[in-house]
Amino acid sequence: MEGRLETGIPGLDEVTGGGWILPSTVLIAGAPGTGKTTIAVQSLFHGARKGETGVYFTGISEPGWVVQHFLKGFSFYDQALIESGKVIFVDVGAAVRKSAQEGVERIQQEVERIAPARIVVDPISVIRAAVESERLYRETLHDLVAFMKGMNCVLFLTAESEYDEKRPGLESHMVDAILSLSHPKEGHARRKYLEVVKMRGSKHMSGEQSADLSDAGFVVHPGLH
Amino acid sequence: MEGRLETGIPGLDEVTGGGWILPSTVLIAGAPGTGKTTIAVQSLFHGARKGETGVYFTGISEPGWVVQHFLKGFSFYDQALIESGKVIFVDVGAAVRKSAQEGVERIQQEVERIAPARIVVDPISVIRAAVESERLYRETLHDLVAFMKGMNCVLFLTAESEYDEKRPGLESHMVDAILSLSHPKEGHARRKYLEVVKMRGSKHMSGEQSADLSDAGFVVHPGLH
Amino acid sequence: MEGRLETGIPGLDEVTGGGWILPSTVLIAGAPGTGKTTIAVQSLFHGARKGETGVYFTGISEPGWVVQHFLKGFSFYDQALIESGKVIFVDVGAAVRKSAQEGVERIQQEVERIAPARIVVDPISVIRAAVESERLYRETLHDLVAFMKGMNCVLFLTAESEYDEKRPGLESHMVDAILSLSHPKEGHARRKYLEVVKMRGSKHMSGEQSADLSDAGFVVHPGLH
Amino acid sequence: MEGRLETGIPGLDEVTGGGWILPSTVLIAGAPGTGKTTIAVQSLFHGARKGETGVYFTGISEPGWVVQHFLKGFSFYDQALIESGKVIFVDVGAAVRKSAQEGVERIQQEVERIAPARIVVDPISVIRAAVESERLYRETLHDLVAFMKGMNCVLFLTAESEYDEKRPGLESHMVDAILSLSHPKEGHARRKYLEVVKMRGSKHMSGEQSADLSDAGFVVHPGLH
Amino acid sequence: MEGRLETGIPGLDEVTGGGWILPSTVLIAGAPGTGKTTIAVQSLFHGARKGETGVYFTGISEPGWVVQHFLKGFSFYDQALIESGKVIFVDVGAAVRKSAQEGVERIQQEVERIAPARIVVDPISVIRAAVESERLYRETLHDLVAFMKGMNCVLFLTAESEYDEKRPGLESHMVDAILSLSHPKEGHARRKYLEVVKMRGSKHMSGEQSADLSDAGFVVHPGLH
Amino acid sequence: MEGRLETGIPGLDEVTGGGWILPSTVLIAGAPGTGKTTIAVQSLFHGARKGETGVYFTGISEPGWVVQHFLKGFSFYDQALIESGKVIFVDVGAAVRKSAQEGVERIQQEVERIAPARIVVDPISVIRAAVESERLYRETLHDLVAFMKGMNCVLFLTAESEYDEKRPGLESHMVDAILSLSHPKEGHARRKYLEVVKMRGSKHMSGEQSADLSDAGFVVHPGLH
Repeated sequence: MEGRLETGIPGLDEVTGGGWILPSTVLIAGAPGTGKTTIAVQSLFHGARKGETGVYFTGISEPGWVVQHFLKGFSFYDQALIESGKVIFVDVGAAVRKSAQEGVERIQQEVERIAPARIVVDPISVIRAAVESERLYRETLHDLVAFMKGMNCVLFLTAESEYDEKRPGLESHMVDAILSLSHPKEGHARRKYLEVVKMRGSKHMSGEQSADLSDAGFVVHPGLH
Repeated sequence: MEGRLETGIPGLDEVTGGGWILPSTVLIAGAPGTGKTTIAVQSLFHGARKGETGVYFTGISEPGWVVQHFLKGFSFYDQALIESGKVIFVDVGAAVRKSAQEGVERIQQEVERIAPARIVVDPISVIRAAVESERLYRETLHDLVAFMKGMNCVLFLTAESEYDEKRPGLESHMVDAILSLSHPKEGHARRKYLEVVKMRGSKHMSGEQSADLSDAGFVVHPGLH
Repeated sequence: MEGRLETGIPGLDEVTGGGWILPSTVLIAGAPGTGKTTIAVQSLFHGARKGETGVYFTGISEPGWVVQHFLKGFSFYDQALIESGKVIFVDVGAAVRKSAQEGVERIQQEVERIAPARIVVDPISVIRAAVESERLYRETLHDLVAFMKGMNCVLFLTAESEYDEKRPGLESHMVDAILSLSHPKEGHARRKYLEVVKMRGSKHMSGEQSADLSDAGFVVHPGLH
Repeated sequence: MEGRLETGIPGLDEVTGGGWILPSTVLIAGAPGTGKTTIAVQSLFHGARKGETGVYFTGISEPGWVVQHFLKGFSFYDQALIESGKVIFVDVGAAVRKSAQEGVERIQQEVERIAPARIVVDPISVIRAAVESERLYRETLHDLVAFMKGMNCVLFLTAESEYDEKRPGLESHMVDAILSLSHPKEGHARRKYLEVVKMRGSKHMSGEQSADLSDAGFVVHPGLH
Repeated sequence: MEGRLETGIPGLDEVTGGGWILPSTVLIAGAPGTGKTTIAVQSLFHGARKGETGVYFTGISEPGWVVQHFLKGFSFYDQALIESGKVIFVDVGAAVRKSAQEGVERIQQEVERIAPARIVVDPISVIRAAVESERLYRETLHDLVAFMKGMNCVLFLTAESEYDEKRPGLESHMVDAILSLSHPKEGHARRKYLEVVKMRGSKHMSGEQSADLSDAGFVVHPGLH
Repeated sequence: MEGRLETGIPGLDEVTGGGWILPSTVLIAGAPGTGKTTIAVQSLFHGARKGETGVYFTGISEPGWVVQHFLKGFSFYDQALIESGKVIFVDVGAAVRKSAQEGVERIQQEVERIAPARIVVDPISVIRAAVESERLYRETLHDLVAFMKGMNCVLFLTAESEYDEKRPGLESHMVDAILSLSHPKEGHARRKYLEVVKMRGSKHMSGEQSADLSDAGFVVHPGLH
């Protein structure tokens, strides 16, 4: 796959028509409990095992050690990759608190220094919370996305609520790909689904794909319902 | 169960895949009458009977004696555990009225002094009401959650309305686990349900579980519909 | 029934599991025409016939003589109980207009002077209209409810619109019991229902109970649909 | 019928359980085209034929001659009753434009001067538009309603949109009776309905009653669907 | 038909019970693509062929030549009637931009000078956009409507979105007649409907009437579904 | 086709009744992933192959090279047409950031210099974000649309969310044609549809038409469901 990166999520390379496009920005949207962080971090570890460097920007919603604490149960988690600096957790909480601009600058400095292939900003809504107006958020996000395009990496942004096609957030318009995660109730049970709602420049599978979240991480079952 | 605490709610250890994770923050969301306070306090008394100390922060919506007045009908209620200081009701109403910051500081001082294993803040919405902006609330909540992580305890936050997956509050994104309580009308009757919507770091049962609220307290019937 | 008061509404003692809890606060919510005022006043007159004193705080939405004018058609209405001071209508309209605080103080003074067993504030929304912010309303209501708890009485608050479980008002969280009245259309007809949505400290019947409003006042038919 | 006035709308005396209560305030709510103004004015003319005086406060949404222009097609319209001063159209538009207070004062002066048995304010929403806050509107409306109670008349207020039980306007709480008019689509056709949603102090028929609007005016068919 | 004008829309004279009432104000509401402008202009040309003068106030949403450009495909369009001054397009865009008041004054001056029988203001929402508050809009609209009543003409106002009976705009209350246009999806297809929702002073056909929009203009098929 | 331009989208000339009208403004509305940008750019390349010049105004949501990067996979993409200046990507991002007015002026200057037959502004919502009030947006958009009418070209505006007939944006009222793109879920799958909701001056096919988005670009299947 030229100019593409394996997703690291079983089944998702097939659904996306060949993995993440390089460079591109991917929005991962879903309600709490649908597996957004798992997909993003699972992809980082996958890249790291292939020799890439990946960065997870944290400190935004909680310190890195807390994220790692909950990730340890997953089989894809590998402490050695963290210790060898292939997967890096960077705390930008203090910077974002000062201002969104400072948070974004801190992210950019780290990315320039590390030159990672995969980057996670989880969740992007904190940037929104840190700016006064929608207009400023649009500009800040635009700058971040444009900067990442120049770094030839895949940038993952997570959105904290269900993807709503009737009222897509402005992130939806700026990104190249949108993954929508859901776990609708069917009777009293829930089933998990992943859908590639948008993926520019790639013929991809449309519609909801059945998915699972287990100790092995996130798995997609293309074409299975 | 290493690093976990029994919930004290019959059936809920099974649903959560082994009890509360230590440390973690648990959001208990539900409309009035669904049993939020009961679950939280029942868990405190259970821990106390095991030798732990538990704190219920009150004075936020009403004085401690009022809460106790209505709890007396439950069989898990044990006045001796209150008198021996294993279950503590702390009134932080005056502090919160001055400012959210002062309320949170008061909570932190008490927690540092008592070092409890289980903590209840009921309801969390009062903190929201005491700050001016959503941004400030996010920071205040972040500080509270991060502080508790460092204390190696389970923190229960109650949310006063039905959990809405379409518009999850920002608490939903910060917590490690979400319990959603509901009592939908089925014809003219109501049935009670508990669902673990999210539980980081633990394989748990998904979907709605049938539940009851009686003099014995809250009971979950895993897998029964 | 120790620590409980008969409701005075046929069938409601059974539904509530033994009448009003003493002390407690009861929210009676329902759209116009569902019988909120009738239930509250019918309960006052019932208590008065048992020798209690009851107070209806009025002047909030209209003068007392108007309320009485429309109550005269009910068989539970007894002019003698008003004349003997067992059922008292107090006009606090002027006080509330000055400020919510003054209205609440006036209510408290009267309650301290009269020491009634049952108190009606109809409707509570006027207090809300008289304060500037939700935060202040929460505090004002909190003070009122806490004060009444100390007076060992049952306080009835009426809420002027249908009880909405998706967006329960903050009154819902502060009260000990919630009665939801409704009269849904079934075809072109309407049927009346009463539901005890929440009742702390008491095992009560859940679900909607069929009800009637006639010259005899409000009647509940437990378990009948 | 002691203390009651014939409605003048065929079938409506039966539905209301004996006509308008004296004194009382009646809200007539309905979307455009449902017949609110027709019912109100038809009732005025009926009273005038019985010897009463009725006043229609106009100039609020349009001059009196325009209202009369469109009423001329109805058989209940009688120019002689206008000329003899039994049905009076009063223009208070200029007063309301200055302030809601001045509009209300103008209405009160006229009512004191004329001492009518039936009064129409069509539509009440203009008073709302003329005050700055909901709080002030509540007070203004309260004063108007209380004043009219003292004048021993029936006051009709029209509300310009469909009665919404989920979000009843505050007028709904202040009035003694609510007539809800509707004309729902059934397939591509529409049928008219009138419902007495609330009527204090009177046993009335509940549910939607079939209705017609013809050259003869508004007619209700109680119990016919 | 005394005091009435032929509509010029095949089938609509029958639906309205005899054409437009003189004087009256007619609101034509519908989503984009339903034919609002077509009905209004088709009616102007019809009147012009009968010898009346009609004015279309433009420059509000776009210059007159653009409107004419798109009208040329309709068979009712007649360039000669424009050249002979029987159908006049007046650009009031510059005036409205200065202020709503100036726009309305410009309209009134032209109407006084031309004394047309039919007037179109398309769309009315631009007046709303040009005033600061709803209150001011109500007054401005009131003045415009009242002025037109004095000119003995039919005034057509177009509203740019679907008529919503649950939330009728305030224009709905001020006008004498409301035409609601719709083109609901039925499966993947759309069908057109016209409904006279309100028509004061005239017995009219109620319910949705099937309609077509072709090169011949707008056509209504009364009673056909 | 006199005064019309081929759309360049297979099947769309038939649906529109003969291609784009010259001059006209076309709104292309749809949620992310429905193919708005594809249709607009595919039309530009089609015109360019016929010898026209087309301009895509970019820099609004992202730099031109990024757009081109994702377009390269489409068979209609032709790098030679870009190099020969028949399809031009103009970055107006810096100008829009200064002010909406400056962005619009920059667009107008380029259009005057290049005199293109087809122009894309993708997305129009950025202009909205750059002005303070809806009123100013209306004026800015009005000026842009009026200017383009004078340039005898087809102007494409994209709107970033699903076309909502209940709440059409004000762009909907100003444009001559509206294409609504959708991809509703049918079970777990999605199907694509294109609908011409409005097209002034042309008899067009109404209702949803089945569509596909593949490496060949956007294709419409008129009359096929």
